[in-house]
Amino acid sequence: MVPRSATLALNESINARRAAGQDILHLGFGEAGLPVLPEIAAALAEGATENSYAPVAGTVRAREAAARYLSRRGLRTDTEQVILAPGSKALLYAAIAVLPGDVVLPIPSWVTYPAQIGFLGKRAIGVPIPRIAGGVPDPDLLEPALTKAREAGADPRILILTVPDNPTGTIAGADLIARVCEIADRHGMTIICDEIYRDLAYDPEAMHSPATMLPHRTIVTGGLSKSMALGGWRIGFLRTPPGRAGQELAAQITGLGSEVWSCLAGPMQAAAVFAFDAPAEVTAHIAASRRLHASVARAAHTVFAKAGVACRAPQAGFYLYPDLELFRPALAARGIETGVALADHLLDEYGIGVLAGEHFGDTRESLRFRAATSLLYGQTADQRWEALGSNDPTSLPWIAAALDRLHTALQSLG
Amino acid sequence: MVPRSATLALNESINARRAAGQDILHLGFGEAGLPVLPEIAAALAEGATENSYAPVAGTVRAREAAARYLSRRGLRTDTEQVILAPGSKALLYAAIAVLPGDVVLPIPSWVTYPAQIGFLGKRAIGVPIPRIAGGVPDPDLLEPALTKAREAGADPRILILTVPDNPTGTIAGADLIARVCEIADRHGMTIICDEIYRDLAYDPEAMHSPATMLPHRTIVTGGLSKSMALGGWRIGFLRTPPGRAGQELAAQITGLGSEVWSCLAGPMQAAAVFAFDAPAEVTAHIAASRRLHASVARAAHTVFAKAGVACRAPQAGFYLYPDLELFRPALAARGIETGVALADHLLDEYGIGVLAGEHFGDTRESLRFRAATSLLYGQTADQRWEALGSNDPTSLPWIAAALDRLHTALQSLG
Repeated sequence: MVPRSATLALNESINARRAAGQDILHLGFGEAGLPVLPEIAAALAEGATENSYAPVAGTVRAREAAARYLSRRGLRTDTEQVILAPGSKALLYAAIAVLPGDVVLPIPSWVTYPAQIGFLGKRAIGVPIPRIAGGVPDPDLLEPALTKAREAGADPRILILTVPDNPTGTIAGADLIARVCEIADRHGMTIICDEIYRDLAYDPEAMHSPATMLPHRTIVTGGLSKSMALGGWRIGFLRTPPGRAGQELAAQITGLGSEVWSCLAGPMQAAAVFAFDAPAEVTAHIAASRRLHASVARAAHTVFAKAGVACRAPQAGFYLYPDLELFRPALAARGIETGVALADHLLDEYGIGVLAGEHFGDTRESLRFRAATSLLYGQTADQRWEALGSNDPTSLPWIAAALDRLHTALQSLG
Repeated sequence: MVPRSATLALNESINARRAAGQDILHLGFGEAGLPVLPEIAAALAEGATENSYAPVAGTVRAREAAARYLSRRGLRTDTEQVILAPGSKALLYAAIAVLPGDVVLPIPSWVTYPAQIGFLGKRAIGVPIPRIAGGVPDPDLLEPALTKAREAGADPRILILTVPDNPTGTIAGADLIARVCEIADRHGMTIICDEIYRDLAYDPEAMHSPATMLPHRTIVTGGLSKSMALGGWRIGFLRTPPGRAGQELAAQITGLGSEVWSCLAGPMQAAAVFAFDAPAEVTAHIAASRRLHASVARAAHTVFAKAGVACRAPQAGFYLYPDLELFRPALAARGIETGVALADHLLDEYGIGVLAGEHFGDTRESLRFRAATSLLYGQTADQRWEALGSNDPTSLPWIAAALDRLHTALQSLG
């Protein structure tokens, strides 16, 4: 039995509470919370005549556009290295499926990785992230973890990284990634680097991909869900390593794709061409989104910091991963001793929806959770457009009120 | 290693030959070969603002519309019984994955079933179809096959049916389905009935679903790929049985879906609402498509019959499954002794692309293949619209020429 993705389940539960009239501060879902750029909607509409089954890997035009997009970002990419699909989630699943061996992943990390690994009958070997940033295993802990996993009969040959990271909102630095790559290389591991938040790095210079350090062993995944706020459109890509091994991997991934999802929908391929070729409207839209995410995530970080809560400063996207360990005595007095109990309490008592750290692989007892700040931009398209265009979004009444509400709840909790 | 779907692989190979200037008569791909109805393109464009992650099973509106659609077709369906996804292929995969046991399927049958079964580590138990129609195992052979499979250590608990059938283009009659249902019930098996060609039954009265005969044990899948010629849009549905067992199954399928594909894209859900609610334009479009498919498939059947080739008369969709056994001596003289060699010969010598029976589970030696007649309607949208509106499509020059070319090739072969 595969339990439903915790993030999607919480989102559906919160939507049901809202439909029932409850006023919920939704920090529980990893959606970009922004409207569709009209120009890409037009590209989708123009692509409506594309009703033929596309090649499994995508149309040549869309793959070429994705290759140009990646090449512009310093990852020189040939068209044949690109596979498109309805979401990078499906491609991650296929990559984990066709690569041999068990899977090492940072803890905490995205809820879907261990679910996919488990469904595919593989073992997930979690390694804690370093203090400085998430998305990569602590290099000091990685080799001992590999040794221990092998002693326990596992065969760790895949390493998943998330750069920038979900759930911590941080970006592992070049040195950290280089150390992890060195270990992965020495142990003959393949890296799958999930770079879905790449274009939302507040400082693009801070973004480094293991694909530039360990090119022949690194798969990169990404898509338009976060940067273009098109999660519901399901447009993802996977970049295989260059060369013969990459070609064989591509054949296997498209083989599985041909039997599970066939292809990315034709109109979506047309939309992908438009976005990956990044005309001025797209570039400006992503830049505005990045500014808004940075502004609100940083303001929420300040709210946590003022309440004395430990939390890494956000560097990309729209997530914070606070640790309420300091509140443990106060929370224990209320009978709250686990992350899930904390999340339930926040939802029931304060109407604040967050996802407990346990869902990201953290310990049951840890008082950590992921807070996504992207659903604060507004409940209507008008509010979201206004937030996107604002020079001072945290002073917009609905965003300011949400931050105040979070502040009040934290004061009351601690 | 999952080999790429044979149908998609042949299609890509033929497209490459065409791009290189070869004149190919493409009978090798199961695409409806018709243009997009402008009104559904408009519905897609209107749905472009739907960029949120939809619930895994689909939006309530789209599921309600699908439930109404199924109910109108004599399968009374509640909204909660419907799961939407990017293609019914993904839903078939999920259903086979979450249901316990090995899988019985008719031979020949769609190439994707055994590929999915094999990938999921299950056994495929093929049972030949009866002489009269395909898509169901011969009831006289089914029980002995179950006994033999159990003796070999298999645990056959899932039975896949295809009604109407791909690759034979036939519709199993009510008596045949009832006999198969009776056996499935007695053996505690779950039926998955793939009804993707349902709306293309030339005589709708000929269409019977096992879901009406064995409701608590039957899953139905379908979608808009064939009836609306939207294969490249990837809109599929699955209908679970009513009641508690169906709810549990739905939870498991959406659980897996949440970790592999998340949801059907929002704009596609909007398009699905429009199609399932079947305004007059949709009904007329499907009716015209059905007439065209019937006319051309029947004309092609006549060409095979005139050449002395055994072939079941088509009753739905756009497939024929001829058997060239009569030509075996003549083919052997050319060194052709297998279905694949025959298909290769047709492509290399006559530029005719078909898919050998072996890909549908038939024996290597059988001289059978699937001929899809739907790509004869034209190479341009104008030609296709003209074919769709014609009272006598087989007299249109490009369709008549294609049928002549097939006739000439068969004369030369035999």
